[in-house]
This record gives sequence, C-alpha cells and structure tokens, in this order.
Amino acid sequence: FLRPLIEELQPYDLGQVFFQLNKVYRRHFLDMLNPDEIAELLEELDFEEQREILTHLGAEKTSKVLNRMSSDEAADLLGELEEQNVQSLLKNMERDEADKVRALLHYPEDTAGGKMTMEYVSVYDYYTVEEAIQYLRREAPTAETVYYVYVIDANDRLVGVVSLRELLIAQPNTQITDIMYERIISVPADMDQEEVAKLLERYDFLAIPVVDDDQRLLGIITVDDIIDVLIEEAQEDLAKLSAVGQTEMDVLTHPFSSARRRIPWLILLLFIGMFTANLLGYFQTTIQQVSALALFMPMIAGMTGNTGTQSLALVIRGLSSGQLTRERYMQILRQEGIVGMIIGTVCGLLIIALVTLWQGNPYLGLVVGGSLWCTLLIGTIGGTLIPLLLHILKVDPTVASGPLITTLNDVFSLMIYFGFATMFLHYLL
Amino acid sequence: FLRPLIEELQPYDLGQVFFQLNKVYRRHFLDMLNPDEIAELLEELDFEEQREILTHLGAEKTSKVLNRMSSDEAADLLGELEEQNVQSLLKNMERDEADKVRALLHYPEDTAGGKMTMEYVSVYDYYTVEEAIQYLRREAPTAETVYYVYVIDANDRLVGVVSLRELLIAQPNTQITDIMYERIISVPADMDQEEVAKLLERYDFLAIPVVDDDQRLLGIITVDDIIDVLIEEAQEDLAKLSAVGQTEMDVLTHPFSSARRRIPWLILLLFIGMFTANLLGYFQTTIQQVSALALFMPMIAGMTGNTGTQSLALVIRGLSSGQLTRERYMQILRQEGIVGMIIGTVCGLLIIALVTLWQGNPYLGLVVGGSLWCTLLIGTIGGTLIPLLLHILKVDPTVASGPLITTLNDVFSLMIYFGFATMFLHYLL
Ligand SMILES: [Mg+2]
Ligand SMILES: [Mg+2]
Ligand SMILES: [Mg+2]
Ligand SMILES: [Mg+2]
Ligand SMILES: [Mg+2]
Ligand SMILES: [Mg+2]
Ligand SMILES: [Mg+2]
Ligand SMILES: [Mg+2]
Ligand SMILES: [Mg+2]
Ligand SMILES: [Mg+2]
Ligand SMILES: [Mg+2]
Ligand SMILES: [Mg+2]
Ligand SMILES: [Mg+2]
Repeated sequence: FLRPLIEELQPYDLGQVFFQLNKVYRRHFLDMLNPDEIAELLEELDFEEQREILTHLGAEKTSKVLNRMSSDEAADLLGELEEQNVQSLLKNMERDEADKVRALLHYPEDTAGGKMTMEYVSVYDYYTVEEAIQYLRREAPTAETVYYVYVIDANDRLVGVVSLRELLIAQPNTQITDIMYERIISVPADMDQEEVAKLLERYDFLAIPVVDDDQRLLGIITVDDIIDVLIEEAQEDLAKLSAVGQTEMDVLTHPFSSARRRIPWLILLLFIGMFTANLLGYFQTTIQQVSALALFMPMIAGMTGNTGTQSLALVIRGLSSGQLTRERYMQILRQEGIVGMIIGTVCGLLIIALVTLWQGNPYLGLVVGGSLWCTLLIGTIGGTLIPLLLHILKVDPTVASGPLITTLNDVFSLMIYFGFATMFLHYLL
Repeated sequence: FLRPLIEELQPYDLGQVFFQLNKVYRRHFLDMLNPDEIAELLEELDFEEQREILTHLGAEKTSKVLNRMSSDEAADLLGELEEQNVQSLLKNMERDEADKVRALLHYPEDTAGGKMTMEYVSVYDYYTVEEAIQYLRREAPTAETVYYVYVIDANDRLVGVVSLRELLIAQPNTQITDIMYERIISVPADMDQEEVAKLLERYDFLAIPVVDDDQRLLGIITVDDIIDVLIEEAQEDLAKLSAVGQTEMDVLTHPFSSARRRIPWLILLLFIGMFTANLLGYFQTTIQQVSALALFMPMIAGMTGNTGTQSLALVIRGLSSGQLTRERYMQILRQEGIVGMIIGTVCGLLIIALVTLWQGNPYLGLVVGGSLWCTLLIGTIGGTLIPLLLHILKVDPTVASGPLITTLNDVFSLMIYFGFATMFLHYLL
C-alpha cells in the first residue's frame, strides 16, 4: 500500500523516510524498493548513510543496485569500501557497468576525472537531427543528462556539442554537424575540481565534457556534482581560516570527537605560546622597568593578527576564485604591502596621539605607534606571503590557517614592540 | 569578417574580447553585435562592466537589448540604475517585457523572487505530450530552460512538472497529466536565496518554481543563478570570519580603496585595544610586582581567541548549511560548552606542568593554567553564543566577525587572568 507514495517521492525524501524508520523496519522498507529506486536513493547519501543501507542488502542485491547507479556515484561508493569487497562486488556486476566503474576508480576524487560520469549521450557526426533524437530517446532512461548531445568523429574524437534545445528547433533532416557548436569547452581529467566549477559557472553549462590528450571523450561532469564541489570547497576555505579540523565534520557532533579534532591544533598553538613567553623572557627587565608597556601588548598583537587575517582571507578567496593566478602573485604582494603601509600610518599616528594623551609620555606613544606601523606592515605581508608560499609548495592548505598566522604575528609583533622599547628604554624611564 | 568568430564565441568570451579592446574600438565592436548577442553578453557581466557597455549604446538600443535579456537579468541591471533612467528605459521596451521586469523589480535581491525569471515554459493540464513538445519548440528560443515544463490548471495553479526527458520517452498522445510529477517542490517568493540553493542541491534540479500563496506560478529559478548564489554566500561567510569588508570586493584592487575598506574595522579594534589597555591599567601594580605574568599574556589571549574562532566557524557553517535550526541552538551551546571544558582541562593541565617546570613556581603555573581553563570555556561559549544571538536579532552578520570575537576574547581572557593573579598575588611573590 506504500507503493504509490514511494513512487512520488524524490530520492532525498526516500532517504529521509528510511532514516526515520526504526532499525527493524528498515529492511522491510528496502524490500519494497526495486534496484533502480535503491540506486537513486544511494546516490543522494553520504558514505556513512550508504554503508547503513548496504548492511541491509545482500551482496547480490548490492551488485544489482550498483549496476543501476550512475557510474560516478558507484565509483565513489566503491572507492570507500575495502579492496576485497570491491573486487567481489565488481565481479557480480554487469560487465559493461563494472568496466565503467573500474575506469573511474583510477581518478583522484577532487579532479575532473573523479567527478565525471560515463552516462553521457554521444552520436557520430554523420547523424541527422532526427536520428540523434531517436538515439536520445533510447538513452534517456540511463543517461545522466539528455540535454547535451556530444558529437564524435570516426576516430572517437569529440568534435561538437548540441543541446536538446537546438535539436528541438532544428529541421529533422538537418545534419548534426550543421547545427553543432564546434568551439567545445572541455577539461582534462586531471584538472582540479575547483577549476572545473569555475568554468561551469562562467559558461552556465549543465555539463562539461572531460577529454584525453587526443580529444577523445572520457566522460562528462554534470552541474549537480559541481554544486556539491562548490559547497565542499566553501567549507574547506572556512576551515582554513579557522582550523576547525576536518572539513566534512558535522556541525552537531559528539563533544569528545569534536574536542579531539580541535585539540591538536590548540596544543600546537599552546607550544608556540610558550615559546613566545620564552622569547618575551628576554625583555622581562624592560617590562619590570616600564610596566605600562605590558598594557599595549594585546593591542599590538591583536591588530597585527587581524590585518594578517584580512590579507589571508583575501588570498584564500583569490586562490579559490581563480582570480589569483601565478603571474599576479607579485601584484598582490605589492598591493598588500602598500595597504599595510597605509593602514600602519593611519593607525600608528592615531595611537601616538592617544597614548601620548593618556600616559602623558610622547616617547611611549612613539614606541607604541612606531612598532604598530612596522607590525601592521609585517602582518599584511605575512598574511599574503605565507598562504602563497604554501600554495606554491603544495602543502596541505589548512597549515596556512588563520590561527597559525595570528599566532606567528603575535610572536613577531611583540618582539618588534619590545625590541623598540628596549632600544629607546632610557627615553621611557 | 569577424562575424563567424563572434557567432562561435560564448557570451563570457565575448566579454573577454570586449574588455581587452582599446576604448576607441569598443563601440565598433558593439555595432557588430545584434541586440540578442549584446543581451547575452550583458547577462554574464558585473554591474560595473554592464555600465561600461551601456555607455556605448544609445537609449534606444539599450531598450532593444533589454527586451532580449532574460527578465531576471534585466531586472537586476535596472535595479542598479537611477530611478528616472529606469522609467524611460522601461517606457521604450516592449509592453510584455517591461511588465515582467517591473514585476521582478519589487523583490529583494537575495530572495527567491529576486533570483527568479519569468521566461519559463508552462502548459495547461489538458495538453497532450505532443502538444507540449510543439509548444516547447515555439518557446525554445526565449525560454531560460526548456528542460522542465510546468503544468498549470484552469485557475493558473501549478499542478505538476514534467521534464523534457520524460516528454521524449512518452507516447505522443499521452495526456500530460498522466506523466507529470505531482509532488511539486516549490518555494515562496520571500524565501532566502540560501535556502533555495539548499533545496536545489538536495534534489539535483535544474530549476525550481516560485509560487504565491495560492500556488500560482510566479517564475522559476535556474541552476546557473543558484551557482552564483552559492559563490556569493561562500564569500560572505569568508568575509564574516575575517572582516575584509564588502564581499563583492575584487581580490586585486587599488591599495587605497582596499585600505579604506579595511581601516574602519581596524580603528574600531584599535579603540577596543586602547580600552583593554585601560582596563589592564588597573592591574599595573600586579604586573610590576610579578613581571613574569606579562610573558603569558599572548598565550592566554591567543588560545582564547582561537577556540572562539573555531566555534564561530562551526556556527557560521551550521547556519549557512541549514543544519543549525533554531531548535538546535541549545544543543550546540551545550556541545560547545562541553568541548570548552574538555579543551580547557587538557590545555590547562599541560600549561600547569610546563609553567611550573620552567618558572619553578607551581603557584604561577596554577594561576596560568586555571585562568586558561576559564578563558577557553568562555571563548568557546562566546564564539557560539554571539553569532547565534546576532542571527536571532537579524543584525548584519559581519558584525559577528572573527576579529571582533577575537578582540572581545582578548579583553575578557586577560581580565580573568589578571583577576586570578591579583587574588593569589601573595602566593606569587
Ligand atoms: Mg567520483
Ligand atoms: Mg581543492
Ligand atoms: Mg554563471
Ligand atoms: Mg547528486
Ligand atoms: Mg553525478
Ligand atoms: Mg579550495
Ligand atoms: Mg526578456
Ligand atoms: Mg534579480
Ligand atoms: Mg544571505
Ligand atoms: Mg545534490
Ligand atoms: Mg548567469
Ligand atoms: Mg538567469
Ligand atoms: Mg550566508
């Protein structure tokens, strides 16, 4: 009696129903679904949720379901399972489907190859519009998208693209080569997923073809998967600025697992803090003699950390959006250097005035303001240079996180501050 | 002689060519384009770029181009122009097109209404598949998408959706009501754009319909515009964590304008820094008597700022992704409170050991470690509570930015630290 309801539900909603069911009913629920429906359901779930569903399916039914999943999703799922499990599941799949999935398993997850699917529609260049539409009809039930038809020549090279919109408008007996769009925009399999997303955004496509060096069509990447890429990359950027740890983390989670993920970072920062304390120890007599110096420590360190974070955010965004190409590294460094000097001059002059008025000691004002000028300049340049360097060195980007830059800025800025103060100590006494 | 090239170029590429041309050639280049092509070109540009192009078009040609633009883009463009200009341009447009744009101009930019377009394809529920395809053919040249057909009843209520894929597979004489999908997923015009994006991501749709209270179809939002929403919202979140100022800012820009945008924030933080210095003034004798206390100030303030930023990032992500609904506010607060205590205990014990070993003074260790425990707890709770409160109060979210939370944490943490130190001063001497 649930069948009519099930048929009307979207895969996402089926998932909602499944996970709201008590464990004992879950198997019965899955029994009501055919392999096609389970395949659609699985495609919309995280791996953990997929695993929960797989535990209720036998090995045989799992292979059947894998046959019906789109190849990109099947490969993503198998990529997470244990090697021996994968081999036996592949063996039980239909030959064609297994071959597709095997091919896809080779590509790294965050590249064009890792995001592409094999279920595209392609026709030869001698097809007419009518023949192409006939072929589309046959492929419609399994294709990831039927809205773009890729045209290939006798050597299997991609030579054009036609949208179904254009096919609909064209005369049935027109040659497909007459209406196809020949200036194809395609990507290589090793292109970073973020760059693919950028291209798709730019051209407003629903899918983009992936080709090899000989311009042979390997697969296509569809817009729904690009949306997932954009969300993933946005979370990665947020994590970089805050070092919350793994990006896939749920917002609501067990406090212990959340703490475990955050503690390594904090302990690293704690040791840097102890190291800073150690360095400040060299200036302890200065502090003893002019204890007013200690009052401005948070201001100096805080302001430097903040300018650094601002520059860091700018660079992260520039790298993510692709605006910041390698040729522009010098340009942004010069820009941020000048920004640092402007900011330093404005804030430095202001602080000289404020400190002089408050403490009645112009020399103290000059020491605080002068150090602030230097540290703001260093902060902006550091916040720009460090992520760029790490990007060039291809270091895990979370290393260039906001907290690290803030903490490094703490150390440098306070050393400069107390260095200045010690140099001009006899004016301050 | 440039025509064949122009015809093969995508709108984005046309834009690239245009802006690479010397100013004097730009008008000639535009003269070569017909209104349709200029319309497509404009749709892919920022407002500043659009304005540059409009200066080369006469008022008459501008109205012609506006006729050809999709209504959402035309409304966005007109929404940026001066009121009187808008009225005269609307008057010169075709009646139908002007009416659509006028209707769209009422909706706030970041809502479903602000993102929707009127160029959808809808058919009555008495249509057959064949009739629907015929109608699609007629509408194909102007529709934003022809891949979804919306079915309406005699009262203009949205009663179903059919994809072109399903139309292709179906028998030509089938009634459209027999194959349409009736459990429509639609949004109201005032829904936040971010929520719309979430829905589209969830269901992998290419477009989503916008309806009024009577389920009448107002427009559709297409996936390409949702991609732009995702990019915009991601940049907004990054800006929140770093307070770089306006989110639309280019990464590479004039240093003066960049500095001007960043300085107000820094000056605010500078005054908070001076206020902190003022508060610390009350503890100046404590610092004078135990100058070693100053050495740990950066560590205390830095660690507290960092845990606060981690919590802040978590909340920003939770709010953005929609995981953090109002009912879960208490849950995340409790979670972060427990996390704060765990982190505080681990880091606090570690610091007691380290300080005692280094300074040979267990009381100093206890003061530093004990304050760190308190400040880490306050930091996580503050980093969670402040953005949630601002979200409830609907305050501009950039106010809850990372730098502000870091700076507030500086003040509170140092007050607690020196408060403890002063309380136990006779043990420290
Ligand atoms: Mg994959
Ligand atoms: Mg990446
Ligand atoms: Mg776009
Ligand atoms: Mg998907
Ligand atoms: Mg896919
Ligand atoms: Mg990235
Ligand atoms: Mg129009
Ligand atoms: Mg709009
Ligand atoms: Mg918003
Ligand atoms: Mg999706
Ligand atoms: Mg667009
Ligand atoms: Mg649009
Ligand atoms: Mg947002």
